[in-house]
Amino acid sequence: MLVMCTVPNRDTAEILAKALVESRLAACVAIQPPGESVYRWEGRLEKSTELTLFIKTTREGYPALEAAIVRLHPYEVPEILAFDAAGLPAYMKWVSDSVIASSPLLSDSGEE
Amino acid sequence: MLVMCTVPNRDTAEILAKALVESRLAACVAIQPPGESVYRWEGRLEKSTELTLFIKTTREGYPALEAAIVRLHPYEVPEILAFDAAGLPAYMKWVSDSVIASSPLLSDSGEE
Amino acid sequence: MLVMCTVPNRDTAEILAKALVESRLAACVAIQPPGESVYRWEGRLEKSTELTLFIKTTREGYPALEAAIVRLHPYEVPEILAFDAAGLPAYMKWVSDSVIASSPLLSDSGEE
Repeated sequence: MLVMCTVPNRDTAEILAKALVESRLAACVAIQPPGESVYRWEGRLEKSTELTLFIKTTREGYPALEAAIVRLHPYEVPEILAFDAAGLPAYMKWVSDSVIASSPLLSDSGEE
Repeated sequence: MLVMCTVPNRDTAEILAKALVESRLAACVAIQPPGESVYRWEGRLEKSTELTLFIKTTREGYPALEAAIVRLHPYEVPEILAFDAAGLPAYMKWVSDSVIASSPLLSDSGEE
Repeated sequence: MLVMCTVPNRDTAEILAKALVESRLAACVAIQPPGESVYRWEGRLEKSTELTLFIKTTREGYPALEAAIVRLHPYEVPEILAFDAAGLPAYMKWVSDSVIASSPLLSDSGEE
């Protein structure tokens, strides 16, 4: 499964990526370079820098991953979009071997 | 729904993003930094700068969004790819509350 | 169909993109600018530069495309994720007209 999420800056991207991978909720997080998001906020057009994350996980791991992102993300309602994916069998196996669906979210210090 | 589209430069990206969000055909457009596209054109291999847009809309909003992109895009046949997405319920609600499927495309001056 | 793949550097991105398009296994490859991937390798958290490729092909072309990426990619198990896509009919037609599903992979010199 591919999960897409946007974050406001690189620090948030790295904190999120590290926590998700260390907690084995994601096999890999690809942080894209900064882009620009255009959206409406309270009726006005807004433009702000955002980085897009491509998070690779499993269907079974998704609920815990979503909860972890909501817990760690600075936005009250972060963008979290999820897509089923087919792919190279050996790579899909690596992803599913890397992810522990019921894994607790480890804090920075490596504790739960 | 996630819609992907590529554009030749940042100006086109911003015009498109602004028009789609202001017209409420998209909730948000994430403009990625410039990349490079490789493709065949009239039998020859071509390479040109392109920016990828991640457009967040709804299934109901897609037909009007597609028509708006075709109308505004400088290419005769722009890349428009659409993917169904699951995701964080609160975020999906924000997207669907932001999009008006039957909305007319507003021009730069805010008129239809 | 959209296929996502990550590569370690721009040279690999260009070699792969050129070979896939010249061999008509892909209609277009959009090379994203360098980002950063976070993952576990042999139990340790790793961070390395990676570029994400968005490869546009057809369902029928996917098996040969996958085999070609595995053959050309420097990783033993490259990331290859595939997503079904809807989209602008004229664009989808351009993609399917551009891709020859049974096409052999042409080497750099243009021979099989």
